[in-house]
Amino acid sequence: MEPVYEAADGESLTIETVDSLNGAVQTDDDLLDAIPEAVNAATGPIGVEGASPGDVLAVEIEDVRVAEDRGRVLTAPGFGLLRDDPDIDHPATRITEVRDGGGEGGEDGEGGEDGDDEGGSRIEFEGLDVPIDPVIGTIGVATAEGPVSTLTPDDHGGNLDTTDMTTGTTAYFPVFQAGAMLAMGDSKAAMADGEMCGTGAEIATEIDVTLSVIEDPEVPLERPLVDTGDAVKAIASAETMEDAVELANRDIVGLLAHEHGFSRTEAYLFSSLVGGLEISQVVDPQVTARNAVPSEYLSVPY
Amino acid sequence: MEPVYEAADGESLTIETVDSLNGAVQTDDDLLDAIPEAVNAATGPIGVEGASPGDVLAVEIEDVRVAEDRGRVLTAPGFGLLRDDPDIDHPATRITEVRDGGGEGGEDGEGGEDGDDEGGSRIEFEGLDVPIDPVIGTIGVATAEGPVSTLTPDDHGGNLDTTDMTTGTTAYFPVFQAGAMLAMGDSKAAMADGEMCGTGAEIATEIDVTLSVIEDPEVPLERPLVDTGDAVKAIASAETMEDAVELANRDIVGLLAHEHGFSRTEAYLFSSLVGGLEISQVVDPQVTARNAVPSEYLSVPY
Repeated sequence: MEPVYEAADGESLTIETVDSLNGAVQTDDDLLDAIPEAVNAATGPIGVEGASPGDVLAVEIEDVRVAEDRGRVLTAPGFGLLRDDPDIDHPATRITEVRDGGGEGGEDGEGGEDGDDEGGSRIEFEGLDVPIDPVIGTIGVATAEGPVSTLTPDDHGGNLDTTDMTTGTTAYFPVFQAGAMLAMGDSKAAMADGEMCGTGAEIATEIDVTLSVIEDPEVPLERPLVDTGDAVKAIASAETMEDAVELANRDIVGLLAHEHGFSRTEAYLFSSLVGGLEISQVVDPQVTARNAVPSEYLSVPY
Repeated sequence: MEPVYEAADGESLTIETVDSLNGAVQTDDDLLDAIPEAVNAATGPIGVEGASPGDVLAVEIEDVRVAEDRGRVLTAPGFGLLRDDPDIDHPATRITEVRDGGGEGGEDGEGGEDGDDEGGSRIEFEGLDVPIDPVIGTIGVATAEGPVSTLTPDDHGGNLDTTDMTTGTTAYFPVFQAGAMLAMGDSKAAMADGEMCGTGAEIATEIDVTLSVIEDPEVPLERPLVDTGDAVKAIASAETMEDAVELANRDIVGLLAHEHGFSRTEAYLFSSLVGGLEISQVVDPQVTARNAVPSEYLSVPY
């Protein structure tokens, strides 16, 4: 709760993050016998001037850049979706080196079709090129209740491991404490929806953001919400995926009802026609899901 | 197990399907007090010449066309993700009329950005236009064990409610019975991933398919697999979402190991970097999930 930096409302800043393991894994021989007690290093907290409980903090993510020459993807005992598979090694590590493809489209024309690769930059996994598409794994504010591990995702954000937390997205968080106390880190050079083995390609990054406080929001915000430009997505974490998708759908039903003047029944029926449920991660102390609605049908009410 | 039609290996045919409620709901006043015992009408079974247990049946979905002037989206008591929400009516029905936008892009330029709308055709929900993007809700073969309700999704396919079951996808099913005994129906004009309220816009369709038998597949197939052109996706159904995503990830790990000569460990690590887990539906007697891998990294081994 002691801010490392105090930002003005509307201020733009660049946040440096180390990788989630704080540099402990540099070669394929660096194995993780257990998840360390101190993991998912996050930079912060950043106090934002004027933010008070009940407000909403908007975090405009303008750019996420990888800041080292390698990522690392790994398993650890007792961790990950297939942790009980006897034919999968726990622990195991593979370093994913950053390759500069030398311009748009890269060298081999593979994997860059969505235009998300930064001028052709890739990581390499055992001879396969994967476009760099950075994800901020952990991002959130201080909770209402007190300290929480950066390994846990919940209504304050935290270890959401959500691929939408990237360049071009604006993320909205409920404010529970004076100053909001934003922190972020645990970035990946690339990550699958689900983060099945428990990590993406963990890597240090530099993140350009602009922070804004929305006072007296006309729709109260209970959980993280993102606007990716293409879609508005409610993000919810819970003990089970069934509970997480129910929370995310409830949030979207409320937003659709507000925007279109729908009854909750109509908003619910409509939610079953467009966009839909998505998986963020299935490996953390709580799992995380989203409900997406295309931007032509829903805007953020802030 | 008595085929209504016997198709040759490699034959192309057009399958007519009624809506999942077989025409019982035609206005907003037609309410469903309960899910009928006979629901999810499917057309079939179609026997395919030469298909034997252990083979794989390939269903190339060349076109899905809506075949009536309206769909219907509805809730029913005890059914759907938010079935216990006191502010949502169960039952409730909204008719979604088909509007012909009169050419590419439609009349208002909304909702057609992905190019999937068929010459501008839309359904209308309470004044909002939704592009028609048909989904075959129920598609599968006969089980190894005996009769199963068309409401249940499982390893044979069935009520998968998967948005990828549409024009341009090739679906692969394990063959458990002589002739495979393919059936399909329960189509929607549009559906969200998750099918939260329990239905999409249920509608009659005509489906053009080509059926092929793959004998002695070099990789045994346990569950449905699809190739959408953009991605290969393993589809799994189970009692919980956690179990479903584990099965889908296991299948993908096996396919990645086969294609790239990876160990299972390497395949698992790689699966955590690209594509990822997706939700098909969370409302049927079992839930259904997928694990997607972009086509540049995985092909179907048949």
